[in-house]
Amino acid sequence: MISVKEAKNIILNSTQNFGIEEIPFIKSVGRVLKEDILADRDFPPFNRVSMDGIAIDFQEFSSRLRSNRPLNFKIEGIQPAGSKQITLKNTENCIEVMTGAVLPNNTNTVIRYEDVTIKNGIATINIDKIKDVQNVHQKGKDEKIGDLLIKKNTKISAAEIGVLATVGKSFVKVAKQPKVMIVSTGDELVGVDEIPLEHQIRRSNVFTLVSLLEKLNIPSETAHITDDKPILKQKIEAYLQEYDVLLFSGAVSKGKFDFLPQVFEELGVEKLFHKIAQRPGKPFWFGSTASLSISEQDVYQNEKGNKNNKKTIVFGFPGNPISTFVNCLAYFYSWYYKSVGVEVEEETAILAEDFVFKPSLTYFLQVKLSYKFGHLVAIPITGNGSGDLASLVNADAFIQLPNDKNEFKSGEVFPVIRYR
Amino acid sequence: MISVKEAKNIILNSTQNFGIEEIPFIKSVGRVLKEDILADRDFPPFNRVSMDGIAIDFQEFSSRLRSNRPLNFKIEGIQPAGSKQITLKNTENCIEVMTGAVLPNNTNTVIRYEDVTIKNGIATINIDKIKDVQNVHQKGKDEKIGDLLIKKNTKISAAEIGVLATVGKSFVKVAKQPKVMIVSTGDELVGVDEIPLEHQIRRSNVFTLVSLLEKLNIPSETAHITDDKPILKQKIEAYLQEYDVLLFSGAVSKGKFDFLPQVFEELGVEKLFHKIAQRPGKPFWFGSTASLSISEQDVYQNEKGNKNNKKTIVFGFPGNPISTFVNCLAYFYSWYYKSVGVEVEEETAILAEDFVFKPSLTYFLQVKLSYKFGHLVAIPITGNGSGDLASLVNADAFIQLPNDKNEFKSGEVFPVIRYR
Repeated sequence: MISVKEAKNIILNSTQNFGIEEIPFIKSVGRVLKEDILADRDFPPFNRVSMDGIAIDFQEFSSRLRSNRPLNFKIEGIQPAGSKQITLKNTENCIEVMTGAVLPNNTNTVIRYEDVTIKNGIATINIDKIKDVQNVHQKGKDEKIGDLLIKKNTKISAAEIGVLATVGKSFVKVAKQPKVMIVSTGDELVGVDEIPLEHQIRRSNVFTLVSLLEKLNIPSETAHITDDKPILKQKIEAYLQEYDVLLFSGAVSKGKFDFLPQVFEELGVEKLFHKIAQRPGKPFWFGSTASLSISEQDVYQNEKGNKNNKKTIVFGFPGNPISTFVNCLAYFYSWYYKSVGVEVEEETAILAEDFVFKPSLTYFLQVKLSYKFGHLVAIPITGNGSGDLASLVNADAFIQLPNDKNEFKSGEVFPVIRYR
Repeated sequence: MISVKEAKNIILNSTQNFGIEEIPFIKSVGRVLKEDILADRDFPPFNRVSMDGIAIDFQEFSSRLRSNRPLNFKIEGIQPAGSKQITLKNTENCIEVMTGAVLPNNTNTVIRYEDVTIKNGIATINIDKIKDVQNVHQKGKDEKIGDLLIKKNTKISAAEIGVLATVGKSFVKVAKQPKVMIVSTGDELVGVDEIPLEHQIRRSNVFTLVSLLEKLNIPSETAHITDDKPILKQKIEAYLQEYDVLLFSGAVSKGKFDFLPQVFEELGVEKLFHKIAQRPGKPFWFGSTASLSISEQDVYQNEKGNKNNKKTIVFGFPGNPISTFVNCLAYFYSWYYKSVGVEVEEETAILAEDFVFKPSLTYFLQVKLSYKFGHLVAIPITGNGSGDLASLVNADAFIQLPNDKNEFKSGEVFPVIRYR
């Protein structure tokens, strides 16, 4: 049995690069960017009018103000947004300008309509406090052509979508997602559509896992295998050829029908650990098939008639619903983020009540999170152990209580893993 | 011009019920549940073995312990998970039991394999500290048949998916999503695939809005309309017939081509407000078509030949990218959540630096959020105003600074609106 920290280290040393694909930018939310996005031109790309009003020459305005001459400017024309830049011919005049338009040639300052009276084609400025180049968003002020706008390895959100559109990245390079198969075992399980007999329950963990992976935009397939060793072995052998990741729920503990650890071993999946000093989720089995060397690939190809250099990562989660849930969040999520190159900041919360946990195990305590004056407060939700699926509904995170003490005081701060 | 608070009140008084639809449970993540989910049986549905080991009769064990007789129990049989309950015939014996199995008849206590030695069909218990009914998850301990498991109006996450599966809800009632059209205006805009001329820029706000709505699982359509009043009017008239919500970006300010407020008025969209005392996003226009009374519907039907009692909500966001972005988060999101019945807890964060903002407007300041010892800390990211789209990439939330003061001190707490 190893510690949570050791388990995490092993898992983070087993990450994998699934390559890069190019997809339409509008489909890229939630995906991980795999190229730097640069400014394709200055931003703004021209001296951009940022208020509706009139554009004037500031020197003309100040000289009139100094000599007490009237502040009225004949309107020479209009510069709408989306039109080619026009030129103010006589700097004693002005041009009406719209937000988003190019600032007309020979003008440098915009007075908004609110501060102007327009009558018979003459605009009279009603204020005398005007600053040179006011209400003009200067060309290149935000970004210069070639500037880095979005760094590689950014998780794309709506904010990035706007920038991708602006620089014309209609297709964008993102991390490919791993190909994942989710397998449930356990002969007590029946389908969601079925009416279980008294000793049966419905399958639920595979669907929970599908949803947790969907949150990472990872599509997945699901299967159920009966607790029969030869059948398990045959199916898993096929899955190892085809998938990057296998997630199992159940059959990794000490039961007479917990065949998975044996089957994995017989199929050459290297056990990297089995059992973590934590609750819930202790009997977690983790392993990986080795990448074959070039010469081994040749042999393999000859023997099997198909090429296979695929490294497959195997997460064997315990079958209790809370165990599967917390292990997916604590381990699969971390493994995935590192695999695709995303750094995730650890979130911490303040325990709202004293809590006692005697066993010398890391405890993932279910909590309800609440925001109080900028503090993230975690209120313990005590269910009836790792089988109490419904208790997940009442919480929204797990707080990770370390194994080196038994009493946790209200006000102490610990890492939290949020699932809402 | 009204305050942020008044604007929010008006918007929250214009919410709408889009009805209910029934969808496959596995597609329901992110949707809002519109039925109470009850336990279809007790949970656990039977006295459930929670450790692999042997099941015994506790009375037998204690009496042997008291009288110092050996703690060895002949194994009568095996009770695997998913099998019908078997019966211990002789209480001097035991039955091997697997996690998830029904506890055999005539047994009440489970000793895990770790505390037992098995040899020649005899299990010898190696410990003497055993509690009655230990390692048995009692029938109905978590939930009784008919108990409320998930409340109506819950936003469905992976946690709820597991419960829905468990109780056999293969189809589930959720709030229907509004039918949304997102319209950009502005003749300076060209497509993402196009190379803009010097005075043009690419469309970006519609895609940002599509992504922001996708986060709420709302599908949307998009269109671009040229700054031409008759064309605007004709297209918007058609959209008002077809959509529940229209989102606009641009053409609501004081410019000569900002036709939208006029067009809305001419099409009978009631203006509920125009302009909010906030920055960015001040020129926001908000309105709604009235639901027609029954008699009006008849008239309408006769005149137009089609039935239309649709109330359409119109959000006219200003065209600057940050303005559109923050208004969608602050107003459309709030409107949507109330419309579908979800209560959202306000998040607050601690300002990390002093900040000065002179105008008497609510300021939505872009911030980068960070977790420090259970505190949510907001570090100001100062861009170059509402046109500086790329600055959104460097932040992940807006902190809402009230309009009744100008100086905001490090350590003060304000609401935040997060977009990552």
